[in-house]
Parts: sequence; C-alpha cells; structure tokens
Amino acid sequence: MYEPPVQRVIDELARLPGIGRKTAQRLAFHLLHVEAGDAVRLGQSIIDLRDQVRLCVRCFNVTAEEQCAICRDPRRDPTLVCVVERAQDIAVIERTQEFEGRYHVLGGSISPIEGIGPDQLRMKELVARVGNESITEVIAATNPTVEGDTTALYLARLLKPLGVTVSRLASGLPVGGDLDYADEITLGRALAGRREL
Amino acid sequence: MYEPPVQRVIDELARLPGIGRKTAQRLAFHLLHVEAGDAVRLGQSIIDLRDQVRLCVRCFNVTAEEQCAICRDPRRDPTLVCVVERAQDIAVIERTQEFEGRYHVLGGSISPIEGIGPDQLRMKELVARVGNESITEVIAATNPTVEGDTTALYLARLLKPLGVTVSRLASGLPVGGDLDYADEITLGRALAGRREL
Repeated sequence: MYEPPVQRVIDELARLPGIGRKTAQRLAFHLLHVEAGDAVRLGQSIIDLRDQVRLCVRCFNVTAEEQCAICRDPRRDPTLVCVVERAQDIAVIERTQEFEGRYHVLGGSISPIEGIGPDQLRMKELVARVGNESITEVIAATNPTVEGDTTALYLARLLKPLGVTVSRLASGLPVGGDLDYADEITLGRALAGRREL
Repeated sequence: MYEPPVQRVIDELARLPGIGRKTAQRLAFHLLHVEAGDAVRLGQSIIDLRDQVRLCVRCFNVTAEEQCAICRDPRRDPTLVCVVERAQDIAVIERTQEFEGRYHVLGGSISPIEGIGPDQLRMKELVARVGNESITEVIAATNPTVEGDTTALYLARLLKPLGVTVSRLASGLPVGGDLDYADEITLGRALAGRREL
C-alpha cells in the first residue's frame, strides 16, 4: 500500500505487542515528520540495544557490562537475594527503595500449561550462587499468580535444605495481578511484610 | 534507572506520540527478548525511513523515488486531483478504490490559532500544477473540521478563477452509524445535503 521504506517501518512496528496496524501507521508518519536526527536516534538505540546489552553473569539482569550495576555496587547486601521472574521486575522493586540486597532473574515462572518447568528457569544458577556466595535469605518476588506462587514454593523446597531462609512478598499485592502494575507503596509494604515460607 | 542502552531505548520510544513510559519499558524489554535480527530490522527500517524516503516532486506524497507510485502510474486520471492535508490521508482514500485521479498533499490546513496560513501550505505548488498539468477538477478532501472547511473554501476561491471545478467530500452520517449518536452539526449537514431517492 505504502512505498517500500514506509511499509517496512509500519510492518516492523506492527509486530510489537500492543501496536496495531493503525498505530504503526501513525507512528511511521510521525517519524517521517520529526527531525531526522530524532528518528535515527530511535532506530540506532534499538540496534544498539541488541548489540550492547547482555545478561549479568551473576544475576541475569540486563547490563552493558559483565556484571550489572547492582551486582557491582559494594554497598548492596550480599546475604540477601530477591528472586524475580523477569529483568524488568528489578526496576519496579528498586523504585520502592526498600531493598538493599541483590537479585536473581529466573527468566519466568513454573507453568505446566506453557511447558515451563524448573529446568527451563535459572534454578541451577541460583543453587550455585547459594553455594558460592554468602546468601542467607532468598526473597521470592515472583508474581502473585498461581505460577508465581508455585515457583515460590519450589524455591522454598529447593533452598531450605541448603540452610537458606526463603521468604515471599507479603500479601497486599492484588491476586492475579502483575508486578509491573503494582504501585511503589503497595510493593514497599509487601517487601517489608514478607513472611518465611 | 536501567542500564544506559536500555534506558536510551525507553527514552526514545517514550518520545513517540501515544507511547507512555510504561509502554516504552514493555516494548524495550520485548525487543530484548525477540530474535536479535527482528530488533535490528526494526531499528534499521526506522533509520532507512529517513534515509530513503522523500517527497514526490509532483504531489508531495512520501516516496522512495523522484515521483510517487501514484504519480508514476499512467492509468491514473491526470485531470482529477484530490487535495489532502497529510500524506497518510492518501492511503485512506486509496482503500475506497473509488478514486482514479492523482493527489496533492497540502501539508496541513489553514489554522489561524496555530499560525498556519495558506503560505505555510503547498498552495503555490498546487496553482503551478493547475497551470502545467491538464487538471479540470480538484476535490478538497481536507478534514471535515473548521480548519479543513476553511481550507476547502480557500481552495475554491483560489482555483475557480483558473477555470478548475472545485468539489468537496460530502458530509453526513457515517454508513452503519446510528442517528442517536450523530452530533447536531453532522446531522444538520446530512439534512442540508439530502438527496432525492
């Protein structure tokens, strides 16, 4: 319908989640009308993203270095590890300013329906960290969903025999919700009120 | 908050219209998880957009060539020109498959409030086309708004003395709509423009 370079941008944008064909068209024409530098900066930042970003060798957070900024920070408590499903959950918890420890990104949650078991998640790597680091408590900050709860229980069964306290974010989070949509105060209270499993 | 390459993508995406910070974050992490080639293709398509796309020398549609595909098409009727505010309006009209002529993109509509007068639009270029091409009718397909109507009236005053018929898209009830939901002004125009059956 449109000339190839325009159609390509529309097609690529429309592949993004939540971006329909109409929105993709609107964005493509917006990009045609902004300063060329602005459009190029957006395009380049997306290319650089995949070029420069890798996973932290310790916690699997996204980072531009070998270890992420949190793992590199000597002020963070090395005895406390907060286990999250996805790297973007880290920023949500950081915003509460209630957590001083480090993180571990599982890469998802146990979901038999989607065929995701513990072996598809970074459980082995967490057990290795418990062996190599001075971890005394693991907070299961998986989503308050059936899958997240299952994963938290699995973590408790896995890590308690290793002498680690396993706790869970307190209720206060709306059940069936998503960490991403929790406000800082609710999430902060959930952190402060965590209970041992 | 995020590491620089991630934060840059979020910042650039959040500059797009209708994309908030939360959506930008979601998209950035989506791009971190898709195949690297997919992300690079999106980024490159945006860069290419500004590199490869220019305005048709005749009608100011977006194109990768000197003239757009419609102006280059010998089957299009050269006597009929549809004047639109923006290049993306062309695709909307093309989808009706009811129009066989060419286009002219004004670049906006007359809006004293926004300081846009005829001189800021491609009126001179349209007059030149009327002089150089075999144009007999100009359809004012500007938006059915105060600004679009003003622009259509201006076009009529400008082009009629040159011996060109100037017409306007009909205003009325949207097909498949409900009388109950029509606003007074639209309904008034539908009444004024009623046709004998």
